[in-house]
Amino acid sequence: MSNSTSNHLLVVGSVAIDWIITPEAEREESVGGSATYFAMAGGGLAPIQLVGVVGEDFPREAVADLEARGVDVDGLETIDGGLTFRWKGRYHENMNDRDTLETHLNCFEHFSPKLPETYKNTAHLFLANIQPSLQLQVLDAMAERPAVVGLDTMNLWIDIANEDLLKVLKQVDILMINEEEARQLSGEDSLLAAAKSVRAMGPSTLIIKRGEYGAMLFGPKDEDIFSVPAMPLAKVVDPTGAGDCFAGGFMGYLAKQGTGLTSANLRTAMMWGSVMASFCVEGFSYDQLRGLEESAIASRFEQFVRMCELPR
Amino acid sequence: MSNSTSNHLLVVGSVAIDWIITPEAEREESVGGSATYFAMAGGGLAPIQLVGVVGEDFPREAVADLEARGVDVDGLETIDGGLTFRWKGRYHENMNDRDTLETHLNCFEHFSPKLPETYKNTAHLFLANIQPSLQLQVLDAMAERPAVVGLDTMNLWIDIANEDLLKVLKQVDILMINEEEARQLSGEDSLLAAAKSVRAMGPSTLIIKRGEYGAMLFGPKDEDIFSVPAMPLAKVVDPTGAGDCFAGGFMGYLAKQGTGLTSANLRTAMMWGSVMASFCVEGFSYDQLRGLEESAIASRFEQFVRMCELPR
Repeated sequence: MSNSTSNHLLVVGSVAIDWIITPEAEREESVGGSATYFAMAGGGLAPIQLVGVVGEDFPREAVADLEARGVDVDGLETIDGGLTFRWKGRYHENMNDRDTLETHLNCFEHFSPKLPETYKNTAHLFLANIQPSLQLQVLDAMAERPAVVGLDTMNLWIDIANEDLLKVLKQVDILMINEEEARQLSGEDSLLAAAKSVRAMGPSTLIIKRGEYGAMLFGPKDEDIFSVPAMPLAKVVDPTGAGDCFAGGFMGYLAKQGTGLTSANLRTAMMWGSVMASFCVEGFSYDQLRGLEESAIASRFEQFVRMCELPR
Repeated sequence: MSNSTSNHLLVVGSVAIDWIITPEAEREESVGGSATYFAMAGGGLAPIQLVGVVGEDFPREAVADLEARGVDVDGLETIDGGLTFRWKGRYHENMNDRDTLETHLNCFEHFSPKLPETYKNTAHLFLANIQPSLQLQVLDAMAERPAVVGLDTMNLWIDIANEDLLKVLKQVDILMINEEEARQLSGEDSLLAAAKSVRAMGPSTLIIKRGEYGAMLFGPKDEDIFSVPAMPLAKVVDPTGAGDCFAGGFMGYLAKQGTGLTSANLRTAMMWGSVMASFCVEGFSYDQLRGLEESAIASRFEQFVRMCELPR
């Protein structure tokens, strides 16, 4: 692969405008989407290329925000006369459960990822949560198999696109899903058993996201298990995008290192995931990631290390 | 304090016979109770003295099991013609939530802890979950203030015995409660805010137990936070007693060290708590702790360390 893209990180996913209602506040035009959150979180760690689609209603300021985080938006397609994917949701009192009030796929319904030529040799690829058939299409469009491929999916695809999902799982290194999805995909209650089953489907490494309880890493070797907590926060404003920011921090660190799936890289990447997710939930949209100072990130990372550090 | 008791650990709590129903199995005469679980878990780490009460129906084999773990049962009172505290509960499919089907306090209703003279100079004291007024009575009965005092409580006492609870909290070093109890006691949603509020009530150190998600430690200094996961297990047979075994492992390690609440001691104690709880839930009652080999404990502790270890 060419040197110029060996530390690059390509993300393909949704770009959206959310309407978020929490028990305490509400934001009607909250820029979101998996690729957006991923890129805003990972942008500080590695140069990111973004593939997604928006309509003419997508705010120019959001594109500028991505660019300010060093994100290459050549792959962000705008549909003339189209509208951006819109989701409206309401969080319960506990800030974990949520109800979907409205979903308008708009131009996302016919999304067909188009990779600029300059993205096709990128060494690190993250396939955010979209139809497995589109994830396969992206993998096929790459000039060569990226060094590291990560993937997210959801209950819907496990349910209605299982065959395609199993196909794409054979081609990825890292799968990131939540506990419920891990149980659904594997048919196992115990996370240990679920991890064994899922890793036999293809990915050497499984990350199980547990929201406010952090995340667990299984692999790449059979007995490797690692757990990180979530950062305890004085206030959670909006949990939307936490998982995508975790993925962005995680993959961003792996891309920055560029030395593959060693145990040390994976463990440090888990910490970066947790740290970036913690900023995300402290505000609506990516408010807390916009203009985030290096020093603030470094300081929270240190705080996170202190929280996990075993006595010598 | 006298040397002979400087590494001893006194526990005062319930001794019970449970009837446990899980989605997959059932045990009708399952020896339980907070003090029993605590002593069986901590017994491998420090010499334990147990204060509790049982009826004539309490199985002699269970007393022998405690003694085999090095537990001093001089403080275990048997009420002539009395019956042991009995609890019957059913776990839900997720093995976390449970319904109480029956509670018969029996001789536990009029429990008044009686400390043998040899217990009164013990340096480490754990007040398991009983009425706060009885917890105060135990503290008063000690010849001197123990070096380390830990305490557990529950929603019921936060609710109906709040005044006594606040009195006893002023006199303890470590409070161990679950998330819901921490929120109830403090009136705060955020665990950070809850910890700040609870630590202002007296205990320098707060441990918030999170079941299958592990536990968090706040204190003894203001900014000290430490998190441990729970050990992922192939199969959870019966979660009853997990929190008490966590407390037993935690306090057992502190007593064994005998060097107070240093950050290193507390962090290592958290790991011992998590490890001992993991054995507990793999069987009914304390089945997995009875006759547990040193080597099996050491091996799981190493496994636990590997799961938490940060890259250098």
